[in-house]
Amino acid sequence: MSFTEFPSKLLENAVNEFASLPGVGRKTAFRLVMNLLRRDSDDVKRFGESIIKLHGEIHYCKICNNISDTEICNICNDEKREKTVICVVESIQDVMAIENTRQFKGIYHVLGGIISPIDGIGPSDLKIDSLEEKVKAGGINEIIFALSTTMEGDTTNYYLYKRLSKYTIILTTLARGVAIGDELEYTDEITLGRAINNRNPYQQT
Amino acid sequence: MSFTEFPSKLLENAVNEFASLPGVGRKTAFRLVMNLLRRDSDDVKRFGESIIKLHGEIHYCKICNNISDTEICNICNDEKREKTVICVVESIQDVMAIENTRQFKGIYHVLGGIISPIDGIGPSDLKIDSLEEKVKAGGINEIIFALSTTMEGDTTNYYLYKRLSKYTIILTTLARGVAIGDELEYTDEITLGRAINNRNPYQQT
Repeated sequence: MSFTEFPSKLLENAVNEFASLPGVGRKTAFRLVMNLLRRDSDDVKRFGESIIKLHGEIHYCKICNNISDTEICNICNDEKREKTVICVVESIQDVMAIENTRQFKGIYHVLGGIISPIDGIGPSDLKIDSLEEKVKAGGINEIIFALSTTMEGDTTNYYLYKRLSKYTIILTTLARGVAIGDELEYTDEITLGRAINNRNPYQQT
Repeated sequence: MSFTEFPSKLLENAVNEFASLPGVGRKTAFRLVMNLLRRDSDDVKRFGESIIKLHGEIHYCKICNNISDTEICNICNDEKREKTVICVVESIQDVMAIENTRQFKGIYHVLGGIISPIDGIGPSDLKIDSLEEKVKAGGINEIIFALSTTMEGDTTNYYLYKRLSKYTIILTTLARGVAIGDELEYTDEITLGRAINNRNPYQQT
């Protein structure tokens, strides 16, 4: 079924909006809109308003660039977090992924992307200047590079290293190695090679 | 990555709303919301408003129950359509599918579902009374049952037949047979059996 003609312009508009989302085709968009049509009007109004509020009311933390309902995010505002350790990540999703481990007690710095010449993203498109300013201002002991283990991630790591190595701070990256639950047979050779070179003393946990 | 903690309540609300759609999980919902966040605020506002307008401004045609921007839909309002032939369909999607064939010149009657005891849908949940009233009022020559070829569709066809056969109108159903482009080898036996029994004189097209 193609949708050459819609019985309603309002319906068509809503379908077009949903179809503009990544991975949502016109058939799926139509199915989603039909689902909304079957709901209570309060329900649908709340749905629409939650989208409108996204842009009107959401903030990006002035310190770490994380998403927030306030000017300074909960993490930067938390007195218990170690402000001397900054974990540099690509995106808000990565902040959430690390927060979910409940292992990190420092604060974050969200770059807003990684250096990717193919996509036309250079260092000036990312929040790198503000990171260097934080370091320059002092009070930072350690910067953790927590970027993807891709070529773009490695490039960004290297660029950050070049910018920050002149300051007297510790620069670290996430440990690379065999993931928990992985079988050695199916681990790629680069990961396995690094895991052998960076082997750790055996600890019973 | 699970989402136990969101950095923003507004973000969480939007993700929850998207995740309430059929076939959209929390990860997908989050990806969709992040896509919206990266867009212009005008764009996002239009998206949200298109959803709110769905309930506030969309009508269901008073005659055929089809979706419409006006009280009477374009099809029922069209003077060129034959008002004596009513095609009974399950849903608005089916109206659109038949309209796209450009083969039908009559009008529609949308039942809003089919009889399905398993889902708790009985005749009184569907727009069957209003269909009978239309027939009773006169001026109808033919009712076409254009329902799914499922057990529920057959049940509904039978119920409609029982309700409408006492009136002097023609009751028809869609032709069943081998679909265009189908190979006989892979056609199910019931379809093939009906196609043989209901064979037509050969016509060169």
